[in-house]
Amino acid sequence: MSKSRAEAFSDGVIAVAITLLALNIKVPPPASGGSLAQQLGSQWPQYAAYAVSFLTIGIIWINHHAALRRVVTVDHTILMLNIALLMTIVLIPFTTALMAEYLKASSGEKLAAAIYSGSLLLMGIAFFALQRHLMRAKSELLDAHITPQMRRQVLVRNFAGLPPYALATVAALVSPYVTLAIVGAIAAFYASPLTTRDVFEQPDTEG
Amino acid sequence: MSKSRAEAFSDGVIAVAITLLALNIKVPPPASGGSLAQQLGSQWPQYAAYAVSFLTIGIIWINHHAALRRVVTVDHTILMLNIALLMTIVLIPFTTALMAEYLKASSGEKLAAAIYSGSLLLMGIAFFALQRHLMRAKSELLDAHITPQMRRQVLVRNFAGLPPYALATVAALVSPYVTLAIVGAIAAFYASPLTTRDVFEQPDTEG
Amino acid sequence: MSKSRAEAFSDGVIAVAITLLALNIKVPPPASGGSLAQQLGSQWPQYAAYAVSFLTIGIIWINHHAALRRVVTVDHTILMLNIALLMTIVLIPFTTALMAEYLKASSGEKLAAAIYSGSLLLMGIAFFALQRHLMRAKSELLDAHITPQMRRQVLVRNFAGLPPYALATVAALVSPYVTLAIVGAIAAFYASPLTTRDVFEQPDTEG
Amino acid sequence: MSKSRAEAFSDGVIAVAITLLALNIKVPPPASGGSLAQQLGSQWPQYAAYAVSFLTIGIIWINHHAALRRVVTVDHTILMLNIALLMTIVLIPFTTALMAEYLKASSGEKLAAAIYSGSLLLMGIAFFALQRHLMRAKSELLDAHITPQMRRQVLVRNFAGLPPYALATVAALVSPYVTLAIVGAIAAFYASPLTTRDVFEQPDTEG
Repeated sequence: MSKSRAEAFSDGVIAVAITLLALNIKVPPPASGGSLAQQLGSQWPQYAAYAVSFLTIGIIWINHHAALRRVVTVDHTILMLNIALLMTIVLIPFTTALMAEYLKASSGEKLAAAIYSGSLLLMGIAFFALQRHLMRAKSELLDAHITPQMRRQVLVRNFAGLPPYALATVAALVSPYVTLAIVGAIAAFYASPLTTRDVFEQPDTEG
Repeated sequence: MSKSRAEAFSDGVIAVAITLLALNIKVPPPASGGSLAQQLGSQWPQYAAYAVSFLTIGIIWINHHAALRRVVTVDHTILMLNIALLMTIVLIPFTTALMAEYLKASSGEKLAAAIYSGSLLLMGIAFFALQRHLMRAKSELLDAHITPQMRRQVLVRNFAGLPPYALATVAALVSPYVTLAIVGAIAAFYASPLTTRDVFEQPDTEG
Repeated sequence: MSKSRAEAFSDGVIAVAITLLALNIKVPPPASGGSLAQQLGSQWPQYAAYAVSFLTIGIIWINHHAALRRVVTVDHTILMLNIALLMTIVLIPFTTALMAEYLKASSGEKLAAAIYSGSLLLMGIAFFALQRHLMRAKSELLDAHITPQMRRQVLVRNFAGLPPYALATVAALVSPYVTLAIVGAIAAFYASPLTTRDVFEQPDTEG
Repeated sequence: MSKSRAEAFSDGVIAVAITLLALNIKVPPPASGGSLAQQLGSQWPQYAAYAVSFLTIGIIWINHHAALRRVVTVDHTILMLNIALLMTIVLIPFTTALMAEYLKASSGEKLAAAIYSGSLLLMGIAFFALQRHLMRAKSELLDAHITPQMRRQVLVRNFAGLPPYALATVAALVSPYVTLAIVGAIAAFYASPLTTRDVFEQPDTEG
């Protein structure tokens, strides 16, 4: 089985999901009371949520790209684990809207924030499951240059991404703002040049 | 005619359709009475419908991928049968929403469930029609390794996927929950590792 | 300039537009009076419009595929004419919804139908403009096998697709049902096996 | 890292964003008072906004295409700058809807227009940041034929695209119509054959 259609389908699903995030930002109806500036300003949770979720999905796409680059051929299990991963990604526009809509509410705001970071944690777990299958697979699925040590490194690095999302989920008990701040910090960390070498250049060029 | 654009277009359509499934899950409006937990909980048919339909469309994508992999070149009939198949796939977000919206209703729930599994049956029939054309086609359309015995196997296996959806449609007369359970079981069966060898590895490597 | 990204972008836009057609079919709200069967039945213009527009966009995709297949390299004018064509395709979900929504109305129904087939005519004109540029282009843009006679044939065949849409637009003065019937008949004609040889096999294999 | 998936993902995101522009054009509800012709006519800001934004996103896609064509391999910074660019493109359907909705309003119309052209300016800045990284990159990222002089030309030309959008944003203080006219003129300028040679043929074939 060729991997190129699996990549193309995943790119398509992730591209649609990331674009649907913007549908959560609504145009305030004209003449609905209050100036447009005030109305747009009061929607700031939507903008913050958009930026954080867009960056997060963008980073998972980069990771997905890096993971499949190491693969030579795909099997039924890879395809099904990939569909499970996509199923979690496609939920993110909904959980993003939920968190943003309730961020300033006086009830439900903690549950909404927990569901938001919980959905990102679920995406991380689905991605880890896919990587674990790849890294444990018989070597004919993987590029011949991937050594056992590199496999271990990839898995350790992937697993290390999960506890911060678990923390962000628990932090919703304190305040939804703390959850959003942690999730935003995770996205900023992975997006920063600091992580470049570690995240996906090294494992493919060194032992 | 090259098959790569037919694959790319199909991937795009299926990717959009599978992602639109999530638009059926709505954020409950804040302060609309009842706790957020209760409101989200009462939407469980939407979550179940999302999971089942996502998996089902994911599996049809895998099958589509496997079917076109055997093809060397495409003709007008393949393209039109493919468009007919896509036309049935694109309806699934609507029929999924219909079934989920009416699952707990006291009237219309059986019709909605019958339309839901009926739309999946229709998709299966459209896929079978595409496969039948491919398997009966003059051999220049197909990979030279596909023997007559393999063609027969592919068709038998494809046809075998139809009666369960017909059963699920008839079962709507009893209860929409039975329909949803059958459709979910079909998806779980095809997603499970049990089906791996049979579904699409064997026909291309053995007689 | 390579043509592959122009194809990929066009495939993406057409795939999204064709899938958005299904958003015009709405789930009737439960308990809104009348049985679900009646409510779904009264939406038949939406289903007919979906089928006709899906087939029509599918056929324009096949034609687009065939047109770009003859191209070796793309220039700025091809890209801009392609964007103009896509701009007309993306409007079709709107004009389809407009026609379907007004088909049974007692006022506005003729205008809505005229706008619908007018948008298809516009798409045909944009496609013809793209083809005319390709067929008149210096030969380095086109595959070397395309003879002057084949160029003429392609243009004649493309131009022949326009009058039926003009007729359907004028027919809206009589009745929107006539417009829908003509547009449906055009789609059925191009989708049928009868047109296979003429539409896009012949010009590439014969003089 | 291969650039092909970065292109495919970008094509997907831009294709979805450009298609979502059409969702801003709504079907007037039948029997809502006033003839359909009047109701459709009063929506002209939506049509103008659709045409201008579609053309603008189409042109940024052409530029993106040309920029990545010069690239041989991608690094983490390119991917992150590309995601930042896509994040600005995906906002355009929202800012387009905002501008169109308020164009004829008596309050908020200047802010809405400023946000609209401001979002296009932001997109231009994100694109310039991507180009600057590419043009300053160590030569292994770029095609070997790109000379230092060509790099400078590309950057000058890209930077030259920013002041007109800044002007359009400031012009919103005068009138939103002036903003829309300037943005439309920019799109028409880049779409015209006049710009062909300059925009992306020359830098790749000459010093």
